[in-house]
Amino acid sequence: MSLLEQTISTIQPQDAAWRDRAKQRLDQLTMPHWAMGRLLDLAMDLAGMTRSIHPPVTRKAIVTMAGDHGVTAEGVSKYPPEVTAQMVMNFVAGGAGINAMARLVGSRVVVVDMGVKSDLSALAAAGKIVSKRVAAGTANMAVGPAMSMEQARRSVEAGIEVVRDLSPSIDLFGTGEMGIGNTTPSTAIVALLTGGKVADVTGRGTGIDDAQLERKIAVVEKSLAVNKPNASDAMDVLAKVGGFEIGGIAGVILGAAAARKPVLVDGFISTAGALIAARLCPAAADYMIAAHRSVERGHRAMHDLLNKWPLLDLNLRLGEGTGAALAMNLVEAAVRILTEVATFQEAAVSKAE
Amino acid sequence: MSLLEQTISTIQPQDAAWRDRAKQRLDQLTMPHWAMGRLLDLAMDLAGMTRSIHPPVTRKAIVTMAGDHGVTAEGVSKYPPEVTAQMVMNFVAGGAGINAMARLVGSRVVVVDMGVKSDLSALAAAGKIVSKRVAAGTANMAVGPAMSMEQARRSVEAGIEVVRDLSPSIDLFGTGEMGIGNTTPSTAIVALLTGGKVADVTGRGTGIDDAQLERKIAVVEKSLAVNKPNASDAMDVLAKVGGFEIGGIAGVILGAAAARKPVLVDGFISTAGALIAARLCPAAADYMIAAHRSVERGHRAMHDLLNKWPLLDLNLRLGEGTGAALAMNLVEAAVRILTEVATFQEAAVSKAE
Repeated sequence: MSLLEQTISTIQPQDAAWRDRAKQRLDQLTMPHWAMGRLLDLAMDLAGMTRSIHPPVTRKAIVTMAGDHGVTAEGVSKYPPEVTAQMVMNFVAGGAGINAMARLVGSRVVVVDMGVKSDLSALAAAGKIVSKRVAAGTANMAVGPAMSMEQARRSVEAGIEVVRDLSPSIDLFGTGEMGIGNTTPSTAIVALLTGGKVADVTGRGTGIDDAQLERKIAVVEKSLAVNKPNASDAMDVLAKVGGFEIGGIAGVILGAAAARKPVLVDGFISTAGALIAARLCPAAADYMIAAHRSVERGHRAMHDLLNKWPLLDLNLRLGEGTGAALAMNLVEAAVRILTEVATFQEAAVSKAE
Repeated sequence: MSLLEQTISTIQPQDAAWRDRAKQRLDQLTMPHWAMGRLLDLAMDLAGMTRSIHPPVTRKAIVTMAGDHGVTAEGVSKYPPEVTAQMVMNFVAGGAGINAMARLVGSRVVVVDMGVKSDLSALAAAGKIVSKRVAAGTANMAVGPAMSMEQARRSVEAGIEVVRDLSPSIDLFGTGEMGIGNTTPSTAIVALLTGGKVADVTGRGTGIDDAQLERKIAVVEKSLAVNKPNASDAMDVLAKVGGFEIGGIAGVILGAAAARKPVLVDGFISTAGALIAARLCPAAADYMIAAHRSVERGHRAMHDLLNKWPLLDLNLRLGEGTGAALAMNLVEAAVRILTEVATFQEAAVSKAE
């Protein structure tokens, strides 16, 4: 059995008995019933994922996967493609948004080269990034498949490997990405999987104007028409209109689910990876926590498809894992409530009449 | 000049020049323009409040004000009034929701007796709580004013004093409260100040059923009819249909604004205090940060009146300051972005074309 099949076969849904054990305690906390709302729902989820009423979440990592996209040749982004590699340098130097957010919440940032066009081998050799390089950027999906089926599988397995290697020292994962042009494949994925109109789920990415937005919609439509991905075959979708970092994120999620560890799914591109993961293994969705709702159009449709309601809604559209890092604090809050708040009996507080 | 008038006379709006200085840096950060959305808006606010592009926010305190309410005699709450004092004991023992959340974000919890019915003098003598006790609970507002005008002023000045005493060692304040029955006066305040129908802003508080909800609506309507508070006189409103902890929270906000320090306003009751503060001194609203949107009906109308959009929306309805504590992490995130993220020039990243 390959790593992918082996991982998928390991993934079990959340454990109902552990969810119930958590609920029994949460029902008795010194507060009006379920008065901390979604944080209590989250506490139950964490118990169900980790099979514990003391879910470990203190050792954290954001896995930020970088890749380039041949479709940038179509003029879909406001930034030149070399920014992908420049931002990897920025991550390594600690100067990006994700570095600041990760420091705040006490998380590591693990930067993975999934297929950046520039040569980043010196950074990998120095141990500054992890190299899982599938190729020097995807092919232009507007004229043919973004990658081969073998490359698609390789990208997902790379994400699984990253989590497998981190898992002994990490309790809570978050996804992140960097890749100029990557809202375009993500848009193709959500349009295809929801069956909606491309124009309804295409957003402005890094901030393109109206004319570029029209072009981006046309490019996504053309990519779907040229490649005819099979919506019921997630690996075919990933290969034809995906990206290496999107496949990598799907792998991170599958790996976390197999390890029974929660994974915070960041923004639009990360959620495209989550859609691929959920199609490859529906039970993996039990380990996903939707970190935030992005400004990017189409993110809501993705969450609807996954039946998730994001924790934060702060008009973020940066990616990198920034929303996932911010939501880590809420995951820790949920655990603190479950483990630190006294029950009515413990605190000798009168219950409701 | 009294402490109240002196404090109000000190409060200045946010400083536009410092807001601009922050914006100049935020515009240049290595991310698509304004890609961290509301956190960047918040960073500008913090610069405008603190007159600094390194706004200090690390030393934090949640001021949790407790008081009892004569209106509980009307059967408006699901919990017996002795729970107010029991929960103060729980705060002191560290077992309540606010303790867990404050530990998570590294905040102190300062519990203030604003007028709890039970005798808490032993706790005050032991330095476990601050005593600013105005009286042993308010009078029943359904039959007459909740308190005298002098008591109303005393409650607000008590809040100012608490902040004055904490201010040398605290950068960032949060409000919180405990008081069985206190959604009822808060509902009267919002109904009066919005001019809306009582039924439209009355919620279920700690979880009352339909019959109790009808009774609560009737009690609020009766309180307004009996007392005829003057909606254009905040102190009259506070005296007739308020609470000691609500006045105290208004004072905390005024004190923070006078000290040019940000103050996170928690849920429904805290926002009633914020409405009083904003009526006493409109510029004080410049220092308020709406922490979260509560489940409680009427909270949205309060935020609309204050022209605030809350940071979090997690179906919380606990109070105590729990939402304010959770939002402290987002305030720190905003400062981290302003002070730690590199500019395009610093990181040598290409800008948009």
